[in-house]
Amino acid sequence: MDDRALVQMIRGIIGTDATDDDCAVIENGEDYLVMSTDMIHEKTDFPKGMTDYECGWMAAAVTLSDIAAMGATPLALLLATGVDRADRVEAIIRGADACCRAYDCRLMGGDLDAHAECTLVSTGLGRVSRDCLVRRRGAQPGNIVAVTGTPGQAQAGLDGYPAHWQALVTPRPGVFEGQVLGRAGATAMMDVSDGLAISLHDLAEASGVRMDVTGAVIPRPEGVSYEDATRYALFGGGDFGLLFTCPADLFPIAGVDATCIGHVSTGEGVFMDGKPLKKAGYAHSWE
Amino acid sequence: MDDRALVQMIRGIIGTDATDDDCAVIENGEDYLVMSTDMIHEKTDFPKGMTDYECGWMAAAVTLSDIAAMGATPLALLLATGVDRADRVEAIIRGADACCRAYDCRLMGGDLDAHAECTLVSTGLGRVSRDCLVRRRGAQPGNIVAVTGTPGQAQAGLDGYPAHWQALVTPRPGVFEGQVLGRAGATAMMDVSDGLAISLHDLAEASGVRMDVTGAVIPRPEGVSYEDATRYALFGGGDFGLLFTCPADLFPIAGVDATCIGHVSTGEGVFMDGKPLKKAGYAHSWE
Repeated sequence: MDDRALVQMIRGIIGTDATDDDCAVIENGEDYLVMSTDMIHEKTDFPKGMTDYECGWMAAAVTLSDIAAMGATPLALLLATGVDRADRVEAIIRGADACCRAYDCRLMGGDLDAHAECTLVSTGLGRVSRDCLVRRRGAQPGNIVAVTGTPGQAQAGLDGYPAHWQALVTPRPGVFEGQVLGRAGATAMMDVSDGLAISLHDLAEASGVRMDVTGAVIPRPEGVSYEDATRYALFGGGDFGLLFTCPADLFPIAGVDATCIGHVSTGEGVFMDGKPLKKAGYAHSWE
Repeated sequence: MDDRALVQMIRGIIGTDATDDDCAVIENGEDYLVMSTDMIHEKTDFPKGMTDYECGWMAAAVTLSDIAAMGATPLALLLATGVDRADRVEAIIRGADACCRAYDCRLMGGDLDAHAECTLVSTGLGRVSRDCLVRRRGAQPGNIVAVTGTPGQAQAGLDGYPAHWQALVTPRPGVFEGQVLGRAGATAMMDVSDGLAISLHDLAEASGVRMDVTGAVIPRPEGVSYEDATRYALFGGGDFGLLFTCPADLFPIAGVDATCIGHVSTGEGVFMDGKPLKKAGYAHSWE
């Protein structure tokens, strides 16, 4: 049973609309509130050599990225900090606080707990006007498919390429890009934190469309063999670029450094250079 | 170093206003949003014999209680679920969902993670009109001090009194009472989840006042020796009654089952029957 099978079970209990996107969406008068929570912890998410400050930064970044993926502006972030030693708390909080400040958000509290394994859970709140909200389900045939940044950098950093280490341990969420894309008319969006290939599948499935991408134009981490770079870019996790679709005549979008990698058509599935693209990426393993 | 010392350090980084109350308070046009996160986990918070359903219920309840303590109406709750076995997830989600529904809130998603120790982090969002928000710092000399429910029940349940087991494992947050108290004009409020005595100290310190309580009138768990019941009621954790202050002529407040246990005056400190009341209750231990 993988994460996605579990999510299907949970949908049966709490409803499908609550689990469709990177954030929950809540009515708030003339706009929407969006809210997301992410649990990360030592064994799975913090590679050896990562500092406590960087752990705090990463915890904030993953949640800010989810808010960005909805086109929303972050308002506040809370951090639940479970650590084995109290002397780790300060650096973790400083890292999370710095990440929030870098993206005009505010760390407004949280919870503290003694925990055998360092476990950080960040929860973010954002707000977006009704016409700027972007969900996963809006991709339309004829749209182009684009991605910001360079997918695969975090995986390259994890695999020992020092030039990509910072991309892994202090990831940069697309907070400003997400807001620009929401205002500009992106039709569907999510972040690629589980990997580009699986995110393409998620977006195509949520929208009920087919996506075709061109392998050669996908940005790849520099200084890595073409073969490894391709694998990292397609199947590596830990990056915070935004994958989005929009009408072809809107692209490129001023202020957003993005690469057009393909297009949307009727049908289903994700294809690269005409062949089915494997639905694989980062997923927790169970049992 | 205890939790409260750590919180002082964190205040130095993120600011004091962000950590003063049971929830963070966020401007939202003509009202406020309130938000709180709570981490609970197997070793510290789930007594032997507690079911997964009850763990999920408790996770939701602790956060709904924080929202209640601000006088706010809960809007949405997210649950980050870290568990050792995937087959535990369903019962946990069902418990959290049931608690949300019981209090007119909605479980709107969360995160899933494989974790050696079952760790649940719930984050709740609420909304309250500006004139109904209740903070910890508003207690005024001349106010009365009151508490809802019966403090000490959860501790009695933990110590082996079967009649109080349910109070421990399926706690009832004061969601409806909190909203009534906010509208009625309560001047300061918090929940007593860390214990009544320490909560009295927190409220008195935040408000810069003295509080005097009368030991004999404090509600105590039934079926327990007077001495143990007193200790549980003052220093036991895990209850979700609301401790509040209000002008004397407002009390009792229709729809809220509360007991007046004392009064507020100028000065500082908390006294029971004229003697200083120990500032003690539930706190995590570090190092």
